[in-house]
Amino acid sequence: MIATRYDPVELRRFCEEVFVSLGMPREDAEVTADSLVRANLEGTDSHGISRLVIYARRMQEGRISARPEIGVERSGSVLRVDGGNSLGQVASYRALEAAIPVARETGIVGVAVRNSNHFGTAAYYCQMACREGMALIATTNSPPGIAPWGGKKAYFGTNPIAFGFPTRREPPVIVDMSSSVVARGRIILAATEGQTIPEGWAIDEEGVETTDAAAALKGAVLPLGGAKGYALAMAVEIMSGVLSGAAFGPRVNNLYKDHDPPANVGHSFILLDVARWMPLDNYYTRMEQFLEEVKAIPRAREVEEVFYPGERRYLTYLKRAKEGVALPVAVREELDLLAAECGVPFPSPVGMS
Amino acid sequence: MIATRYDPVELRRFCEEVFVSLGMPREDAEVTADSLVRANLEGTDSHGISRLVIYARRMQEGRISARPEIGVERSGSVLRVDGGNSLGQVASYRALEAAIPVARETGIVGVAVRNSNHFGTAAYYCQMACREGMALIATTNSPPGIAPWGGKKAYFGTNPIAFGFPTRREPPVIVDMSSSVVARGRIILAATEGQTIPEGWAIDEEGVETTDAAAALKGAVLPLGGAKGYALAMAVEIMSGVLSGAAFGPRVNNLYKDHDPPANVGHSFILLDVARWMPLDNYYTRMEQFLEEVKAIPRAREVEEVFYPGERRYLTYLKRAKEGVALPVAVREELDLLAAECGVPFPSPVGMS
Repeated sequence: MIATRYDPVELRRFCEEVFVSLGMPREDAEVTADSLVRANLEGTDSHGISRLVIYARRMQEGRISARPEIGVERSGSVLRVDGGNSLGQVASYRALEAAIPVARETGIVGVAVRNSNHFGTAAYYCQMACREGMALIATTNSPPGIAPWGGKKAYFGTNPIAFGFPTRREPPVIVDMSSSVVARGRIILAATEGQTIPEGWAIDEEGVETTDAAAALKGAVLPLGGAKGYALAMAVEIMSGVLSGAAFGPRVNNLYKDHDPPANVGHSFILLDVARWMPLDNYYTRMEQFLEEVKAIPRAREVEEVFYPGERRYLTYLKRAKEGVALPVAVREELDLLAAECGVPFPSPVGMS
Repeated sequence: MIATRYDPVELRRFCEEVFVSLGMPREDAEVTADSLVRANLEGTDSHGISRLVIYARRMQEGRISARPEIGVERSGSVLRVDGGNSLGQVASYRALEAAIPVARETGIVGVAVRNSNHFGTAAYYCQMACREGMALIATTNSPPGIAPWGGKKAYFGTNPIAFGFPTRREPPVIVDMSSSVVARGRIILAATEGQTIPEGWAIDEEGVETTDAAAALKGAVLPLGGAKGYALAMAVEIMSGVLSGAAFGPRVNNLYKDHDPPANVGHSFILLDVARWMPLDNYYTRMEQFLEEVKAIPRAREVEEVFYPGERRYLTYLKRAKEGVALPVAVREELDLLAAECGVPFPSPVGMS
């Protein structure tokens, strides 16, 4: 596939101006633009600028609020946040902004966000916490993708759980994993291209394992590691959806389905101020030893380097920050249309790749 | 294998008297006995009364403290606990006893336990939290079992993470999963019996997948779902070992290796007072709807019932509480020896199974 590379700073500015043209306050537009382009920079293109088009359409329709009223209610070390049907990035960023000083005060905060939408990558909030010397556990639910174990109909989202742990030097440790074997997006892609999918990815609508991508889309994605991934998807659904007061199960609506009501996605965040666990310098030294030991483990055949979670993402970030972000033709064409519609010029490419 | 069934109340009393004979305070003996026999009742025999023998031996040697000084230091909503080289059950139970009133006060508590040992099943602490209308996230590290992804030498423990969520009626939702595909104990068993193990369970010391159980024991257990399980094992190791001030990686010593120093296992607990998230009655009603919906999902072929995590464990508990706990001959023989040594009579069987 031919892809053209763009300057990430210009892509970010483009996203920001599109959001502002749709009525978003400048500071919310900045945060969301940063989350999207950061995902591209880190190699998570599925959560990058390609999402801008659907976000914009839903804001134009009023299905996502461009100027939400976000309510934050504090009770002890717990924040209950009403996202006001904002973009998930906006609700989550504001929730964490409110949570950071509480974590400084009490050492740990639990945050429940309801009435929100797709929040981009969970890694983004982990990075935000790590910059403060804090650790984060983040979860979100999403529209049905995974069936209960033994069932044949999707109920849970592909429900990611993420952990961020700060380090003295970049990059922090960031674990960001869905509860499914694979992202649903990869099955959609295979179906579009008429390709089969590997065994162990999905079941059809009869609950039987299938390698037929189209049949898989009518069925469900398999949970990570069988019954354990089912259990994890359930824990994430309770943390994100049940405990927050958001929707759970099939009532979490799909951004990509026209005429669905607002999604009412829920997120949970647990933010830990590491300095309450031990002096920060001591913690950083322990983490250094830990990560050095992990990386020094004897390697299996044909493995050149052992990476820790978050390291590859960071290396991709460095590379793309320098070389630019490649966008496939299909994505660029969609963005061109959006650019024309919003009256915001799309940046010129910096090269081909 | 021939197994004889025993009254769980008598088994519990036996464990308790053995611990008391080894110098443990009565109340600590009670907690540990309850944790062990509860594991048998729930079908987790690997964490049950069969552990009593090694616990007793290590206490006799002074490698685990029978009368520990457990230190609990509070800072805001964080408890830092020095387990005093106690049994993990004792350190964890005392830590949670201290944490519950703090959670009532602030809504959420982070607990870091260092200088501890094997804590039995994580499910036990989830149940303790659920009885208080609280949710719990629990982790522990353990001696090396899992290699970093791309490495061929075990570094992380099989590092479980558990989630407990209370329900209005029994049983609560309890997710209790290791970060590995399978418990190392099952590979030990296969090696003992000269059997092969299924593909996808383990690698040999060269980092190559193997079905040879003996070769697997020299290598490492594979993480759950590949690289994701590695990432999860790392998150659990940081939560339990790095953040708590306990040992991490290969410095977590093995209870079963003679002459090792104290294990210095670490645990982490995050305790959430659900009533701070929403009125408890409202939460229970939402959980009921959630679990009913999950159980009502159309079933795949040959599946009779969809269970939620914690449900099978509870059904086994009910069955065994009535019929008794079956112990294999080998376990009974070891316990007979221990009984003679400690001067505590082993209970008479209630039947065969």
